[in-house]
Amino acid sequence: MNSIRIETIKRLLRRDALTHLRKIVNKTHAADISVIFPFLSLSNQHKLFDMIADTQQKGILFSELGEDTFLNFIEALELDEIAEILETMPADDVADLIGRLPHEKSSAILEKMKKEESEEVEGLLHYSDDTAGGIMVPDFIALKEDTTAKDAIGSLQKEYLNVEMPFYLYVTNEHGKLLGVCSLRQLVVVPPDTPLKAFMSADVFAVQTYTDQEEVAKIVARYDILAVPVVDDTNKLVGIVTVDDVIDIFRKEATEDFLKMAGVGAEFVETKSVLKSMKIRLPWLFASCLGGIFAFFIIGRFEESLSKFTYLAAFIPVIMGMGGNIGTQSSTIVVRGLATGLLNIKEIWSVVLKELAVGFMLGLVYGSLIALVAQVQYTLPAVGISVGLSVICSMSVAALVGSLVPMIFARINIDPAVATGPFVTTSVDIISVFFYFQIATILLGI
Amino acid sequence: MNSIRIETIKRLLRRDALTHLRKIVNKTHAADISVIFPFLSLSNQHKLFDMIADTQQKGILFSELGEDTFLNFIEALELDEIAEILETMPADDVADLIGRLPHEKSSAILEKMKKEESEEVEGLLHYSDDTAGGIMVPDFIALKEDTTAKDAIGSLQKEYLNVEMPFYLYVTNEHGKLLGVCSLRQLVVVPPDTPLKAFMSADVFAVQTYTDQEEVAKIVARYDILAVPVVDDTNKLVGIVTVDDVIDIFRKEATEDFLKMAGVGAEFVETKSVLKSMKIRLPWLFASCLGGIFAFFIIGRFEESLSKFTYLAAFIPVIMGMGGNIGTQSSTIVVRGLATGLLNIKEIWSVVLKELAVGFMLGLVYGSLIALVAQVQYTLPAVGISVGLSVICSMSVAALVGSLVPMIFARINIDPAVATGPFVTTSVDIISVFFYFQIATILLGI
Repeated sequence: MNSIRIETIKRLLRRDALTHLRKIVNKTHAADISVIFPFLSLSNQHKLFDMIADTQQKGILFSELGEDTFLNFIEALELDEIAEILETMPADDVADLIGRLPHEKSSAILEKMKKEESEEVEGLLHYSDDTAGGIMVPDFIALKEDTTAKDAIGSLQKEYLNVEMPFYLYVTNEHGKLLGVCSLRQLVVVPPDTPLKAFMSADVFAVQTYTDQEEVAKIVARYDILAVPVVDDTNKLVGIVTVDDVIDIFRKEATEDFLKMAGVGAEFVETKSVLKSMKIRLPWLFASCLGGIFAFFIIGRFEESLSKFTYLAAFIPVIMGMGGNIGTQSSTIVVRGLATGLLNIKEIWSVVLKELAVGFMLGLVYGSLIALVAQVQYTLPAVGISVGLSVICSMSVAALVGSLVPMIFARINIDPAVATGPFVTTSVDIISVFFYFQIATILLGI
Repeated sequence: MNSIRIETIKRLLRRDALTHLRKIVNKTHAADISVIFPFLSLSNQHKLFDMIADTQQKGILFSELGEDTFLNFIEALELDEIAEILETMPADDVADLIGRLPHEKSSAILEKMKKEESEEVEGLLHYSDDTAGGIMVPDFIALKEDTTAKDAIGSLQKEYLNVEMPFYLYVTNEHGKLLGVCSLRQLVVVPPDTPLKAFMSADVFAVQTYTDQEEVAKIVARYDILAVPVVDDTNKLVGIVTVDDVIDIFRKEATEDFLKMAGVGAEFVETKSVLKSMKIRLPWLFASCLGGIFAFFIIGRFEESLSKFTYLAAFIPVIMGMGGNIGTQSSTIVVRGLATGLLNIKEIWSVVLKELAVGFMLGLVYGSLIALVAQVQYTLPAVGISVGLSVICSMSVAALVGSLVPMIFARINIDPAVATGPFVTTSVDIISVFFYFQIATILLGI
């Protein structure tokens, strides 16, 4: 349905059928409009944007646009209009957008916004982007512990109408310290005169303002909750992180891990220009280039062996390939296992030994198979045995390196996703080639 | 905090300090207890389990356990106890668990459950696991369009107290067909006598029972909603999918894509035995083995060139490595881009041409660098030129194949993640080696 509507919008733009276009645009959710934005000219972007009647939908569009598209687009907008749109948005989303702007522009916009709103946003700007403080919203429901269930319902209907996600009622003392939590449902089940402290749960899962956003997301996912309260150093409740942000965090972190493992930075590059994409991918390939040149010098040392047994060269691809592939398997399992919590860095030895066992056994299987092919082709048993042994060594070492490297990185607090990919493939290449020629030189008695 | 508590539980189990253990266990969320379960003996698992006082927490523990751990654990449980625990759980989670059991056992348990609950579960078992029908819960709030806001609040406090996530009120006609939706918040803002139809939103994002779960998850994420209604072929409302399931879907799908790209099946293998892990990883390595043997025969064809210029062999690793790595970059970008919706299969040519351009330009950079090394080492210009040209060819082709293959797979409805990894690396290896020796043979005039 949505992709059809998108095609329709594009077609109407080409035909300049403005009346019809306006109707469609206002029937379409801004999240869907944001999808076509990057493919439109700046003037068409503004044409669509001006047609949106609901300021709140304009705000949703703002949050959904990619960074580059957003920055280009708002160049030509009046500061007043921007401020008016931002006022309709949750403070955490505004802080995200404002943080991308040059300082002069952002302070000019903040000045135009209502004081209450801009103060909330400025409060959030102090926290680092990827911490609980950076993604929390400052509007939550906080009531005193002596409040009765009936009064609580009353204040929900009065003071707290504008709270974005009113699912939990947090209970705080007179200094705003977090004491407990109760759910909307509990509120209507208990007798109306019961004070909150009588049925609140005191065992609240709270996070600190500086807690890493991935940690926050894991807590929300693990306990199946809709929001997690954020407290400062003194246990004062300062905000909540809601489940919709948690979904975004998981998707973003998974994409980042994918890209890092493949050596393509942490941001999605395909929507950037060829030159930018090149610049991001170049350094990662440099590691592999250095590794290849290193392997070249290793093979150079064995030139004598090669000149006597030329066909040794023909096995280089299969030995490198088998090592490289099982290394990728091992490191992917470990990196993803650590990210999802299915593996624990404390189990480093049991994981690595198991991988080593798997690598060795698979090495036996494929080493025999490839040795057989070598034997059939070159009858000289020493060739078959050299190749077979090399495959076993290469696959065992690759499984070992592939699992050990991300485990060690995680242990010393280096992101295992970012460093593992290039490091593992490059070192496995070098080690495989070296083992192969060393074994062959000995067995062939060169 | 949690990892400390886990260590404490393990220690208390070793010491058999039962009273203390019981206290800790009942203070710990079942999701945390589930983390240590796989590392405990069966008898210790039962010891912990029997200490849990809250039946609902036992249910949470059930849903959080891995498939193998769960099946082993419940072997020794009484059917009555299992049924009692399942009755406290949401119907979709029960259907998941029941679906894993052998048919005899599952029907015996369903018979022991309350009729109302078991019917709900049996209804869900008809739907395939990875569709909206398989993950929906059948308890939702549905009211007629003439109901007033006041009466709606009244029925929330009476009939709908047990609804798992009471955030949206769905409006249906007398046949149960979905007409619209309104939020809890709207209910308290409008005058009490307003009928629902006056303020409900008729533009509901609904999914079909057979909609793929990934599609469902994307809708919830895109529109930042907490639940999406599921309708059957006649537009009758039959269930809702809630945001907590959506988080699980995204995490599971990301893990699956990671593992598939690396050729390790779709399920996390590290928690399985060495033998099971081997069995899953073996076939993917077979593709790479075949490719390696193919490359071996290609190189065999150029034995004459190799015997004249032995050192040609020394460049095989760097040429294969550069091609392989840029191929992985391209395919990762495309596979992840398609999964997140940042890329669209309709843009196949613009994406592939851009990747080709990036591959060619990076090929120029690294081709020149590697040619320079070759030139310095072997002074013969033809060697340097051959190697440089081969790197350019290999990297261009790899970027092309790496982006084209997943795009084509997606187009013909094959999961791009599952087929891309082994296919791309293997074909890039073969193509690189062939180009290299062909170019060298021509330029060196062999």
